[in-house]
Amino acid sequence: MINEQLVGIRPFIVMDVLERAQELERAGHDVVHLEVGEPDFETPEAIKEAAIRALRDGKTHYTHSLGIIELREAICAFYEGTYGVKGLDPDQVIITSGTSPAFLIALALVLSREDEIVLSDPGYACYPNFARFIGAVPRFVRVEESNGFQYDVDTLKSLITARTKAIMINSPSNPTGQITEPERLQAIANLGLWVFSDEIYHGLVYDGVKAHSALEFTDRCFVFNGFSKLYAMTGWRLGYVIVPKNFIKTVKCMVQNFFISANAVSQYAALEALTNPEVARDVENMVKVYDERRRFMVNLLKEIGFGIAKEPKGAFYVFANASMFGQDSYRLAFDILEHAHVGVTPGIDFGANGEGFLRFSYANSLERIEEGLRRIKRYLHEQARP
Amino acid sequence: MINEQLVGIRPFIVMDVLERAQELERAGHDVVHLEVGEPDFETPEAIKEAAIRALRDGKTHYTHSLGIIELREAICAFYEGTYGVKGLDPDQVIITSGTSPAFLIALALVLSREDEIVLSDPGYACYPNFARFIGAVPRFVRVEESNGFQYDVDTLKSLITARTKAIMINSPSNPTGQITEPERLQAIANLGLWVFSDEIYHGLVYDGVKAHSALEFTDRCFVFNGFSKLYAMTGWRLGYVIVPKNFIKTVKCMVQNFFISANAVSQYAALEALTNPEVARDVENMVKVYDERRRFMVNLLKEIGFGIAKEPKGAFYVFANASMFGQDSYRLAFDILEHAHVGVTPGIDFGANGEGFLRFSYANSLERIEEGLRRIKRYLHEQARP
Repeated sequence: MINEQLVGIRPFIVMDVLERAQELERAGHDVVHLEVGEPDFETPEAIKEAAIRALRDGKTHYTHSLGIIELREAICAFYEGTYGVKGLDPDQVIITSGTSPAFLIALALVLSREDEIVLSDPGYACYPNFARFIGAVPRFVRVEESNGFQYDVDTLKSLITARTKAIMINSPSNPTGQITEPERLQAIANLGLWVFSDEIYHGLVYDGVKAHSALEFTDRCFVFNGFSKLYAMTGWRLGYVIVPKNFIKTVKCMVQNFFISANAVSQYAALEALTNPEVARDVENMVKVYDERRRFMVNLLKEIGFGIAKEPKGAFYVFANASMFGQDSYRLAFDILEHAHVGVTPGIDFGANGEGFLRFSYANSLERIEEGLRRIKRYLHEQARP
Repeated sequence: MINEQLVGIRPFIVMDVLERAQELERAGHDVVHLEVGEPDFETPEAIKEAAIRALRDGKTHYTHSLGIIELREAICAFYEGTYGVKGLDPDQVIITSGTSPAFLIALALVLSREDEIVLSDPGYACYPNFARFIGAVPRFVRVEESNGFQYDVDTLKSLITARTKAIMINSPSNPTGQITEPERLQAIANLGLWVFSDEIYHGLVYDGVKAHSALEFTDRCFVFNGFSKLYAMTGWRLGYVIVPKNFIKTVKCMVQNFFISANAVSQYAALEALTNPEVARDVENMVKVYDERRRFMVNLLKEIGFGIAKEPKGAFYVFANASMFGQDSYRLAFDILEHAHVGVTPGIDFGANGEGFLRFSYANSLERIEEGLRRIKRYLHEQARP
């Protein structure tokens, strides 16, 4: 009775963790949440005030299906200012209700049934489900801890077939927090596949490292970005995709049919995020705080005994090798939750090659991170005792 | 290069009308817009104030993937209070970013590739495109003016095959403004197909007529509704679908993957819309105004010579027979736009059987409706002169 295409869509394991954590909390336990993929910060004040102004000004109607022109122009200016990408047409920028639906649109544009898209394993758990939904085939490529979880370009070359149409890159990456070097991005662009570049964690980079946009290396790309992570705007549901020029007409038609337009007030809020210097200062402060937590968490995880072969320099995740504490990451995550009351995400949620790892999020306060890791340390070391 | 599945997705003709209208406006002409499918009213004040409170309270994070529980409970209470539908589980209610993406989810749940969904011709132009996107086949059934554009149940029975899995109903209807009688809804429910009931215009009914929910007649239905039309909240992008209980788990998984959650602030605004008596009074006033415009427009259209076989009693559209002024509705609409500077939607936009009709929207002020119809009358009567 339920459509066969959907059978392949797997629920996220992290949702099981979250649900069990909530049960524990309802039973009166204090749970430390290191499993979350959402900034703990509030949306900057200036953005909220811009939204309130938009509401009072009656910006409560449909907008242009691609989004308000001022926002699309500001995004073009942002890509030019930040990455030196010139000549973007605002009509290449499609504003969507969060970044997620943009994947559905973009994949459907270039992938026919049975076409393959290359995805890294481990990688963001939704990517394969977008592909399956439109009848395409995820082609998983193992990426290794020793290599900073980066695609090996020779491996990529060896597996491309006539059916392989696209490749997903995600730098900074969820779950690994790693950043792809520009030389590698160029080599991936040179493969001649459609490049799908998920740039949602751009701006959340540390130690002076820079994340590059796929648009610096190729026009044959779809760039996904949004306001959820950098501006702490998850609940505003505002993202975008930048599409190649020849797709504008078709994309517009799809958006008109399937989404009509994105939230009007959120669009004005996003415009404020991109253009108000006060917001830029707030973001700078948030990035400083994330960085402090990152260093703290990496040190403490190493001290506990987790493996961190290459320090993560982006996003707000540490993907730590936990195989010394157990090969079954699902079971390990649940043991930690049950016994130490700390939520962490099992590596298996991100693919078979994520097995043996745990993802720790530092989108939580230093105090809570310290408390959580202290509990994990005690629990694991108690377990290790004879 | 562009996916074959999308080739079947046709742009809306009304968008051509709108774009040409905007060109005329930029050239300094005054255009009367009777082509719009959006309330001209502002969102009620109490709803906006609730949104501002939510913003100030920091409701800027992801919500539960299905939506905030208070809103889903309020929707269940609304269906019980308005239609006597008992026993809905709040988890059957899925809050989405506007009603449109809910169709994608629901169609994908029950239609496999090549499965058919019955759609009325004329009907809302997006329905067939949702079906095509997921690889299903729209099976158009002509509905006739003489019959109030209602499905003939015997005709339906005669065309159902093993591949026919679902039927779409839309009452009050876009574009016809007609309401389906409860006996007919029951007969359609008895066909044993999945019933997809688009109830987005519920509440916008006149002359004491009541629109019934599909849930009064069958559990084998997906009910689509939202806040855009009744509460003048188009730009808030908030809709929902009520799914049968056995789909809850799969739907949750799809929403987590493809949308994560709907806009948080809009959800609190929608909760206010459903629960604040002040909003109910605002809605009552809006409905009174629509009704006044409806009578005015129907009378004036008849006076001009358009055919209105059965008076529309819902939504904010009049679907008028214009064949006495020209068989080609696209050309007629453009002639009216070019020469009388009034935007109307050609019937062909709603299907082959809509040819010869024009859709007039009364989501505009009485003054503008009068001005627009006065212009059309003068233009058509000048044309008619030898």
